[in-house]
Amino acid sequence: MKKIEHVKVENGMKVNELIRRMGNCGMNAKKLSLVVDVCESMINDKDCVVFMGQSGAMVPAGMKNLFVELIKNKWIDVFVTTGATLTHDLVEALGNNHYQGDEYADDAELNKKGFDRMYDVLMSNEVYPIIEDFLDKHMEEIKKVETVQELLRLIGSKLDEDSILGAAYKNNVKIYCPAFIDSGFGMILSFKGININQFKDLEEFLKPIWDMKKKGFIYINGGVPKNYIQQSLQFSKNGGADYGVQITMDRVETGNSSGAELKEGISWGKLKVKAKYVDLRADTTIVLPIIIACLKERIKK
Amino acid sequence: MKKIEHVKVENGMKVNELIRRMGNCGMNAKKLSLVVDVCESMINDKDCVVFMGQSGAMVPAGMKNLFVELIKNKWIDVFVTTGATLTHDLVEALGNNHYQGDEYADDAELNKKGFDRMYDVLMSNEVYPIIEDFLDKHMEEIKKVETVQELLRLIGSKLDEDSILGAAYKNNVKIYCPAFIDSGFGMILSFKGININQFKDLEEFLKPIWDMKKKGFIYINGGVPKNYIQQSLQFSKNGGADYGVQITMDRVETGNSSGAELKEGISWGKLKVKAKYVDLRADTTIVLPIIIACLKERIKK
Amino acid sequence: MKKIEHVKVENGMKVNELIRRMGNCGMNAKKLSLVVDVCESMINDKDCVVFMGQSGAMVPAGMKNLFVELIKNKWIDVFVTTGATLTHDLVEALGNNHYQGDEYADDAELNKKGFDRMYDVLMSNEVYPIIEDFLDKHMEEIKKVETVQELLRLIGSKLDEDSILGAAYKNNVKIYCPAFIDSGFGMILSFKGININQFKDLEEFLKPIWDMKKKGFIYINGGVPKNYIQQSLQFSKNGGADYGVQITMDRVETGNSSGAELKEGISWGKLKVKAKYVDLRADTTIVLPIIIACLKERIKK
Amino acid sequence: MKKIEHVKVENGMKVNELIRRMGNCGMNAKKLSLVVDVCESMINDKDCVVFMGQSGAMVPAGMKNLFVELIKNKWIDVFVTTGATLTHDLVEALGNNHYQGDEYADDAELNKKGFDRMYDVLMSNEVYPIIEDFLDKHMEEIKKVETVQELLRLIGSKLDEDSILGAAYKNNVKIYCPAFIDSGFGMILSFKGININQFKDLEEFLKPIWDMKKKGFIYINGGVPKNYIQQSLQFSKNGGADYGVQITMDRVETGNSSGAELKEGISWGKLKVKAKYVDLRADTTIVLPIIIACLKERIKK
Repeated sequence: MKKIEHVKVENGMKVNELIRRMGNCGMNAKKLSLVVDVCESMINDKDCVVFMGQSGAMVPAGMKNLFVELIKNKWIDVFVTTGATLTHDLVEALGNNHYQGDEYADDAELNKKGFDRMYDVLMSNEVYPIIEDFLDKHMEEIKKVETVQELLRLIGSKLDEDSILGAAYKNNVKIYCPAFIDSGFGMILSFKGININQFKDLEEFLKPIWDMKKKGFIYINGGVPKNYIQQSLQFSKNGGADYGVQITMDRVETGNSSGAELKEGISWGKLKVKAKYVDLRADTTIVLPIIIACLKERIKK
Repeated sequence: MKKIEHVKVENGMKVNELIRRMGNCGMNAKKLSLVVDVCESMINDKDCVVFMGQSGAMVPAGMKNLFVELIKNKWIDVFVTTGATLTHDLVEALGNNHYQGDEYADDAELNKKGFDRMYDVLMSNEVYPIIEDFLDKHMEEIKKVETVQELLRLIGSKLDEDSILGAAYKNNVKIYCPAFIDSGFGMILSFKGININQFKDLEEFLKPIWDMKKKGFIYINGGVPKNYIQQSLQFSKNGGADYGVQITMDRVETGNSSGAELKEGISWGKLKVKAKYVDLRADTTIVLPIIIACLKERIKK
Repeated sequence: MKKIEHVKVENGMKVNELIRRMGNCGMNAKKLSLVVDVCESMINDKDCVVFMGQSGAMVPAGMKNLFVELIKNKWIDVFVTTGATLTHDLVEALGNNHYQGDEYADDAELNKKGFDRMYDVLMSNEVYPIIEDFLDKHMEEIKKVETVQELLRLIGSKLDEDSILGAAYKNNVKIYCPAFIDSGFGMILSFKGININQFKDLEEFLKPIWDMKKKGFIYINGGVPKNYIQQSLQFSKNGGADYGVQITMDRVETGNSSGAELKEGISWGKLKVKAKYVDLRADTTIVLPIIIACLKERIKK
Repeated sequence: MKKIEHVKVENGMKVNELIRRMGNCGMNAKKLSLVVDVCESMINDKDCVVFMGQSGAMVPAGMKNLFVELIKNKWIDVFVTTGATLTHDLVEALGNNHYQGDEYADDAELNKKGFDRMYDVLMSNEVYPIIEDFLDKHMEEIKKVETVQELLRLIGSKLDEDSILGAAYKNNVKIYCPAFIDSGFGMILSFKGININQFKDLEEFLKPIWDMKKKGFIYINGGVPKNYIQQSLQFSKNGGADYGVQITMDRVETGNSSGAELKEGISWGKLKVKAKYVDLRADTTIVLPIIIACLKERIKK
């Protein structure tokens, strides 16, 4: 048995060193350290395709660059996300911003001023006509795409590389969005006579999984992106995932997919019995910057 | 100010009476009581269209009849759900079952035996070929539908009224499923050359909202169904919702849509300042049976 | 394997019948049903001493009568609680009240008006001098007691049976309060030159446990009361507890005592391997009224 | 309004720099950054007495050195903790250890081997006779102490400075333990005829608060230590606290003290309206190492 070594901090300490030391602790401190180790392993494994599934208000929260970093460094091969994430990414790519607010704000007051609140973050609702204008300008091309994945690639080709969409385009990382229509981005398009068949997205997503040698996943906050990847991992001749990381505040006891233990995936064939995996119940806006900082130091290009 | 009256229980007490008394308490006891009151008000309001948004493993958990009840009694007008809910509903409609299991089960053992675990509930993975056979039998008709909503209506027409899909068909309650493809049901169809345009689903969903006099919603567990209805409520000439209920274990502090306070919706115009609404942080498998039992006693047909 | 039977509700349904049916479900619905079963078993087991450990704002929330019920029916043999619970019980026993408030209240405003907020419940801070006067009136007697348990018995002898303290006195149920001094009640006494030795409380609490044939516990909300009973259960010649129930919203993953799984107690010898026990992660102000209503119907005096 | 600046990570990044940047984000990322700022402010404020209230399994989790650091640097003036924290500190000070384990371990097996489990941390139960021997050796002195605070000072005087108890002794930081008897340490003493009056502890704790110019608190995990300090802060001629930090995973909605918002304290007079305070819902084993690492870089001795 390994003794717990109490974490020591030093002046001017680096993030990576602190997190390494937390690996000698217990509870969530140890788990966070293991999360970095498993991410490092799956990214460094040349045979492994890395899927990231992300939901939640990570762009409003100020986490956009972390995803851009993951994409530019090709640490992830496929990015599965939500319409909301892409809407907020587009808001910023088109020159608008999110603002620091207050979770105790007067919502009636904000409504009058035209600000939409997401916990303690605000966004002007003037962003919507700007998105609409932008989409209208490219409508001819948009009308030709057959899948959401192609649509996102097209949009990405018009944007700078400091957006998620732009970075994914430039670095050939595919973005899938299985629940696109519950977002501002999707809603705007619904009035434009778009014809997109999401079953084609799914077919295209599923096919290559069958032959993948190894698969790894990183789930940030559960939701449809997690469930979409989980379901798909069953369709592989080489079995379930070889590496897995999940970070969420959702609870196990509800029985819901977002909070379900990774271990449960073994029964379904979504995860290998011998997979390296960690389940971390923590807030992603706290731990994701830390994880990316560690990976930046550990992974040689 | 109203004094707290301590809840008294009596021998042979009825659910509705107990919950009424809890309305004189504080904390979550009071909130649960208010949830029933607000549901009662929105259902009894003839001018109000009631949207239910549901996610989570409610069918595996044994809650199916509660949704059937809501549909048969026409207490809800529109049901927005997940592909998983409909897959599990279909599993049972086609003669299979879910089983009581143990959350500490050996997942590798379950995998060998062919059982899939959802917390403490099990399902045989033999259900998938049965679903596939069923869908194949109706494939000609399926290939003609243009939206997920039509697909679900078609499938419902083949099933008994004790399923969610069958009850909705028979009672003309529309089912929308904005994130259909992350489910067994959806995955099976992706290999069949289906052509469905979910933007048409959305258009059809959004249009009538514009003119609705009053709107109410009941969110069971958050996720895409909640977010889909929330987004849509902004597109109405009569403002946001007049009634709202949310029941979830998700947390406010993550900033994610699933856990976001209803109050926040006022800033967006999703909820009226003067709306009657309650936000209950509780487990839906505990409180939903209670709520439906109360409504059964309170609402005259 | 037992099939999940979907819960059916009927008009005028009784609480006990609904909860019984939930026992055929999964997830927390099943767990709640099992909680009632295990409580029933331990109360009906003549050889079993039942310990209740309670923390949290149950009296402000309007749950006082449930504890009075447990005590009057002698369903519990020992009550371990917090100073806060007893302070709020005393507030009401001396003629004051708690009030329904609003969790979004302006706290600065409340402070000016002299109201103390506990989430959505309010209390006037005029209650403190009333408690002090009451205690002063009995100070001579109070100064003679040697343990907190004796103190609480003495105070209970001056109060009506509709208070926890009064009911416990009249029904000879012992109340222990291992963390008494972090409460209004305790703070007031600290200025009066009281001399109480809590190690004597502990000695008196521990001694009879050694010889108890069987032991059962019900933990409402964790905290020191849970930990106090848990620690004490190790000191018994007949091993750990035979029955156990825990209801809390606290999380397992923090590693803290309040949220720790009951199962963990097996390693320590606090719980028998073959014990009947249930761990329910739920809000106690919702489920406790339900549990007591069921027990009222099930347990014959 | 301040724009959200997306956090950028760099190779070899220091903890303090990363956390500073997170202050330009939203949600919990921002809150964590503010927690460090408020801790820095209260520690640097020469007029402010800093109280730390700590509960939870922080020593088993490997966090002991962080508290030792806080004490040695005199960043905190008073440490309020639990009997469990001090028991585990004593275990290590007497030469024993905690071990990394597995939260899915077989508890019956662990029981046979004599290991006690706290989530994923293990401890041999051979530590108890070692504690007892140690206490017996000093029993004559122990029997002379009148308060828990004196007892802890006495024990600290026998221990090395790398324990919490030893460091507190050497650096004249007072340790209070309002719920001492629910711990191994306390239970062992209860059989020894100790006579300690915890009301004297309280009196001694409360008295100096009356005159303190300014007060700040840092709550790690709620529980009795939080509640004890909160209650005491009301008894001051200069009003409630001027600075406050709370870090916990407990929920607001239960209404319980551990999860209660700091803001609520304004109504009671425990916190000043103009106080600087932050409420962070996060796991303390993740964020405390980070916070201490930042303080180490920011605060000049």
